Amino acid sequence: MNIDAVDFFYAAMPEVTLEADGSQDALLVRVRAGDHEGWGECEASPLTSIAAFVTPRSHGVCQPVAASVIGERLDGPADIRRIAALVERNSMDLLQAAHTWSGIEIALWDLLGRARDEPVWRMLGYATTEGKLPYASLLFGADPQATRERARDQVAAGYRAVKFGWGSFGTGDPRIDADHLVAAREGLGDDGILLVDAGQIWGDDAARASRRLAALQEARATWLEEPFVPHAFAAYAELAAAAGSVGIAGGEGAHTVHMATNLIDYGRVRFVQIDAARIGGIGPAWDVAQHAVAKGVTFVNHTFTSHLALSASLQPFAGLADHRIAEFPVEPKAVALAISTTRLHPDHNGEIRAPDAPGLGVDVDLAALTPYLRDVEILIDGERAFRSPTAEGTTPKVKATTKA
Amino acid sequence: MNIDAVDFFYAAMPEVTLEADGSQDALLVRVRAGDHEGWGECEASPLTSIAAFVTPRSHGVCQPVAASVIGERLDGPADIRRIAALVERNSMDLLQAAHTWSGIEIALWDLLGRARDEPVWRMLGYATTEGKLPYASLLFGADPQATRERARDQVAAGYRAVKFGWGSFGTGDPRIDADHLVAAREGLGDDGILLVDAGQIWGDDAARASRRLAALQEARATWLEEPFVPHAFAAYAELAAAAGSVGIAGGEGAHTVHMATNLIDYGRVRFVQIDAARIGGIGPAWDVAQHAVAKGVTFVNHTFTSHLALSASLQPFAGLADHRIAEFPVEPKAVALAISTTRLHPDHNGEIRAPDAPGLGVDVDLAALTPYLRDVEILIDGERAFRSPTAEGTTPKVKATTKA
Repeated sequence: MNIDAVDFFYAAMPEVTLEADGSQDALLVRVRAGDHEGWGECEASPLTSIAAFVTPRSHGVCQPVAASVIGERLDGPADIRRIAALVERNSMDLLQAAHTWSGIEIALWDLLGRARDEPVWRMLGYATTEGKLPYASLLFGADPQATRERARDQVAAGYRAVKFGWGSFGTGDPRIDADHLVAAREGLGDDGILLVDAGQIWGDDAARASRRLAALQEARATWLEEPFVPHAFAAYAELAAAAGSVGIAGGEGAHTVHMATNLIDYGRVRFVQIDAARIGGIGPAWDVAQHAVAKGVTFVNHTFTSHLALSASLQPFAGLADHRIAEFPVEPKAVALAISTTRLHPDHNGEIRAPDAPGLGVDVDLAALTPYLRDVEILIDGERAFRSPTAEGTTPKVKATTKA
Repeated sequence: MNIDAVDFFYAAMPEVTLEADGSQDALLVRVRAGDHEGWGECEASPLTSIAAFVTPRSHGVCQPVAASVIGERLDGPADIRRIAALVERNSMDLLQAAHTWSGIEIALWDLLGRARDEPVWRMLGYATTEGKLPYASLLFGADPQATRERARDQVAAGYRAVKFGWGSFGTGDPRIDADHLVAAREGLGDDGILLVDAGQIWGDDAARASRRLAALQEARATWLEEPFVPHAFAAYAELAAAAGSVGIAGGEGAHTVHMATNLIDYGRVRFVQIDAARIGGIGPAWDVAQHAVAKGVTFVNHTFTSHLALSASLQPFAGLADHRIAEFPVEPKAVALAISTTRLHPDHNGEIRAPDAPGLGVDVDLAALTPYLRDVEILIDGERAFRSPTAEGTTPKVKATTKA
């Protein structure tokens, strides 16, 4: 079959706030090939990612993503790799291309899996889909008491692992950070897994970060996530060397496989966190997972949005039983929940797993999504380069600006 | 003063082809603050970069670039750094932001320099603007004979350095590549500086690249540029270790300072090639130049477009007399030449330099650009998020979607 159509659905909450909650909007991708369709999601700025698909070409290696996708042959996973290489080459100078392509790549796997009646993880070579321990991801409380209560609430809700992050952590007196960590451990109890997310707050300043290490060790934090900006490998390595029992984690910003493997090889992280909806899709995320296995590093998904995105990000390490911890969007916004009828809720053991069902195993619910859909129209010299599909899923006619 | 307005002018040739010529379109940026204005350029996909400026926010760290720029105070270079940090933080998850911000950052330096009657290079701390040896950048010929003639033509035109690249180089039999290199050296004569650009053709495969090393050494190539994709540091380092007299060059794909310094520190390049219009502007490019100096690496500009972009990319190493080689757009398309009335042509010594004039020292010619301007309109839910300024430079009203 050939790829006949790629449609982008931009959905958002009526009000999008400045909170660090990535589930406030979504860019869904539907791919159609022959009689089949598949769905994916970009964890990315929707308008910008749409523009990267339809933009007029700038030159031979700054082409719109569409130029490498529409009309291409799709008979198996090797074709997804082949098209990914086309995008990488033809859109070399289009920075946003990786984010746009990620959602398309995911949709291609879903489409292939549905066409073959096979889960994506099996097409990736895994024999089983293993249970993962979901962690609840929360902001630190306004004071240590509030942090303690938040931890207790999650334990009461059944979570054995909790991640705290952002808020004021890392910005002020390290002793206040230490008080929050003590409180988090108290709230979690002795057995809970405590994870901490610094949200890149220290830039590339390893000295500032290291002033929190003693408190992190005392609170028995399993990891300290994203202490630095994504490319600051030297700072990562310096902190990792001093961190003792605390593993350094990172990788959600990776938009190429090398960025993630470099964070392992040069940055010395102990946990690599990959968002399939940013790194270029499921194939590149699987590549990173294999590198992590080879280097004794633990692979973790990064997911803060929908259960469609969750399934996509679980596939790359679905069969890796030793890679147990998984990010789980505990309180996504309504728009993220409206995306699918299927939910990957924890089972009676408190575990989640990539569905044992064709493709991603998640059914998209366009009707439920309708109230959240935003209508984008892009005109160039008065001619329509893009128009959002209707809520019924019909795609308006646009001028083909993207092919020679 | 405060930043009152940022306007984007998208210009393109009537037909944009698939050749590897980045001068076929341009995205100019005009910034206005108080009574002053400055101009910059993004070396990036125009529509996508505009979208990154105006896109509705996705969450606290996926905001449009506009949110960190419009209304900000601008009293000196420290403010440019401060705004850059805001963009880096607030648009952390918006991949294209670095490309969009690059043009704005350049325009801010130009504006400040014009307001202070000072060249940008002086504001950067340089006492002089040194002459640079421009190299002519060409495609390899269809056969070695054609390559030889192209080299001879450039020598006849006065160029002492010539770069050959792309075409079939690196894709087939290494012996054919060797024949081209012999021919290029013959055409250049013994004294000419020969540079070779592989255009990322070997992905991350150091073995394939190394099969060309002997011929490169024999032809006395000064550098081999971009053998690999930008993040493949291990492959870079492996090739560098085997390359002997041939320096490995790269860096044009860097969109953060760390990406470029990592290419030096881990990739072991001997030449780092920075496009100010991609890496985040003149400030980050200057940072890389200082790192290069500290590590004994040669800084080189990357410029394939207008003389506005050329001035911007020369500023970061204007005062570094030992960093002699400069990329010069020898045969840009008409649209790139129409951008400015000022040209930075080689002087009687065959050298180019950053102008000794306020700001970038390059005057933009909107009237000449008029035939090339493209009109972009972006509507979201029927409301205008962006409309191109008119050829007279007037900015249409748009709804402010970017501020809370």
